[in-house]
Amino acid sequence: MRIGVPAETRPGETRVAATPETVKKLAAQHEVIVQSGAGVHASVIDDAYVAAGARIGTAAEALGADLVLKVRSPNAEERALMTPGAALVGMLNPFDTDNLAALAQQRITSFALEAAPRITRAQSMDVLSSQANIAGYKAVITAANAYGRFMPMLMTAAGTVKAARVLIMGVGVAGLQAIATAKRLGAVIEASDVRPPVKEQVESLGAKFIDVPFLTDEEREIAKGVGGYARPMPADWMRRQAELVHERAKLADIVITTALIPGRKAPVLISEETVRAMKPGSVIVDMAIEQGGNCPLTELDKTVVKHGVTIIGEPNLPALVAADASALYARNVLDFLKLVIDKDGKLVIDREDEIVRAVLVAIDGDVLRKAA
Amino acid sequence: MRIGVPAETRPGETRVAATPETVKKLAAQHEVIVQSGAGVHASVIDDAYVAAGARIGTAAEALGADLVLKVRSPNAEERALMTPGAALVGMLNPFDTDNLAALAQQRITSFALEAAPRITRAQSMDVLSSQANIAGYKAVITAANAYGRFMPMLMTAAGTVKAARVLIMGVGVAGLQAIATAKRLGAVIEASDVRPPVKEQVESLGAKFIDVPFLTDEEREIAKGVGGYARPMPADWMRRQAELVHERAKLADIVITTALIPGRKAPVLISEETVRAMKPGSVIVDMAIEQGGNCPLTELDKTVVKHGVTIIGEPNLPALVAADASALYARNVLDFLKLVIDKDGKLVIDREDEIVRAVLVAIDGDVLRKAA
Repeated sequence: MRIGVPAETRPGETRVAATPETVKKLAAQHEVIVQSGAGVHASVIDDAYVAAGARIGTAAEALGADLVLKVRSPNAEERALMTPGAALVGMLNPFDTDNLAALAQQRITSFALEAAPRITRAQSMDVLSSQANIAGYKAVITAANAYGRFMPMLMTAAGTVKAARVLIMGVGVAGLQAIATAKRLGAVIEASDVRPPVKEQVESLGAKFIDVPFLTDEEREIAKGVGGYARPMPADWMRRQAELVHERAKLADIVITTALIPGRKAPVLISEETVRAMKPGSVIVDMAIEQGGNCPLTELDKTVVKHGVTIIGEPNLPALVAADASALYARNVLDFLKLVIDKDGKLVIDREDEIVRAVLVAIDGDVLRKAA
Repeated sequence: MRIGVPAETRPGETRVAATPETVKKLAAQHEVIVQSGAGVHASVIDDAYVAAGARIGTAAEALGADLVLKVRSPNAEERALMTPGAALVGMLNPFDTDNLAALAQQRITSFALEAAPRITRAQSMDVLSSQANIAGYKAVITAANAYGRFMPMLMTAAGTVKAARVLIMGVGVAGLQAIATAKRLGAVIEASDVRPPVKEQVESLGAKFIDVPFLTDEEREIAKGVGGYARPMPADWMRRQAELVHERAKLADIVITTALIPGRKAPVLISEETVRAMKPGSVIVDMAIEQGGNCPLTELDKTVVKHGVTIIGEPNLPALVAADASALYARNVLDFLKLVIDKDGKLVIDREDEIVRAVLVAIDGDVLRKAA
């Protein structure tokens, strides 16, 4: 097969879908064409791809391959350069139905890696996790860089300065990495989540979990979850949780919000009232800004100061750690390809495979609808 | 006395010479006038100064006080607002003879805190140390933010990414804090210095010291230093040291250079040849840029990419951590004032005092020359 790796064209998208490490493995069996400059923002020069066995080509050559590896879904111009019947692997946004329809219309066999099920076998191709991990790290580095004080406690001859107080809201992959990174930097950390069972994970990383006492047996029961999964807590508990978080945010120097609901608008966790109550010089990193934000004052793609608080609305934090974000993403892609390329190097789509079935969003002109 | 705290006017200077903490102590005995907005970049609002006992005033009022507390030396316009015979405390740059002459001409009693001797009693007023400490921290945070990879090793389902290799050149206060901060972030650190005895400090922070073997008894003897102070190593050792550092820089992901010689141009530690040999995506933070830089490719006040290496030439790193830099600076100032204000709240200049004598750079129309 001919495998193409185009440069990404979306503004701010610095990642690339293959690295010399993954190209080397692919080139053992396939012809790999990398668009000139595709890796430049991820610190990969063309020569490194050549050394790994790729040929450097144009956008048309990379996009015209039998199998195209992308980070973001191709736009209309890029789609026009693709071959009907070709396969596409990327973060295609399974909730963007217009885009999926356009891909289907051009008969592109499309795999949206974000749709992989959260099962053990799919972990090594879980792009949401790998990129959320990077984003959680970068959120803390970005906050530390914007913050006008030290993160760790500092003891000097001129006296001591206090460690920063960091509040992490939402303890998924991004939140856990944010806790770990802030902990490394010496901050004092509190974390909140609407799923009480994550308390243990938070504490294992050296942070304090913001506990909301259970008032009823029902709350206690729901909090246990079912089969290892969290169940939504009752409305009254949620209200008390939000109130407590507001109180803790007032004391925080840095707040990092990570609450996303797939395919829907992000929930508001930090109200304008809370921002107003925060200390001058505090920093908020709103990791949900691409889905509207966890704070109504956050502005997409901007850093603003409101009520004395710096609010960072960077929509693509992984792209700011382009080299490692690309390295992990490229490995995710490579691991996925093992499921759809047979030992003779041919594309074989086993729709009985749970992972393949989940990520296949368009084929033979049809959009395959997924459960949201 | 009337004590004035003007806002700083130099571009990029975000610090302020007094904080509510120090104002509170001064206001117990003196009338303190803070220029409106003086603390705004350091996350201190006017109301906080008022709560500490200050009055908010204009630039003319603050500069017209009996004792003016500044971060940077006043420019011509600011000097014009000062009262002949008034006292001034700040980082006045004792090597800037034109400025000292101008201060003397206006009969300003001028104390340049950078000139304090490095004795135990002066530690709590050592502005060079307090600000270098902040700068060393911020250099690492800035580098981490510019670097396209993780600082710590990261283990994920998609494989491992390596920890960053950081090379710190020059192990004074800034270099030691840079080591400590990079260590916190999980980097693998090497450090170099032309003073072999600092090896122990470097190793105590968990970094590796780049050892240059001694070839002669003379080198071994000189390396021991005299009375706890380093002695300059012989030229041949210096050459071998530079060669070894070049080799190590080629392997580094992040290089932080901190070599300054007071009042003179900074030494070149990273040649263009070394930059060319570094990996694409590497980052250099040149902390000596205000004195011409430790790398000839660094550009003042800019971040440039040369030979694939990002080179950061930020001249005032402490100002990027304005709140804590101001907090420590203000405490330095307060501690110094204890030496020149008597119990009745009057300015008393004891020229027999070793510290006072060292920092007094102009009085009664005369510039007092210091040994460089």
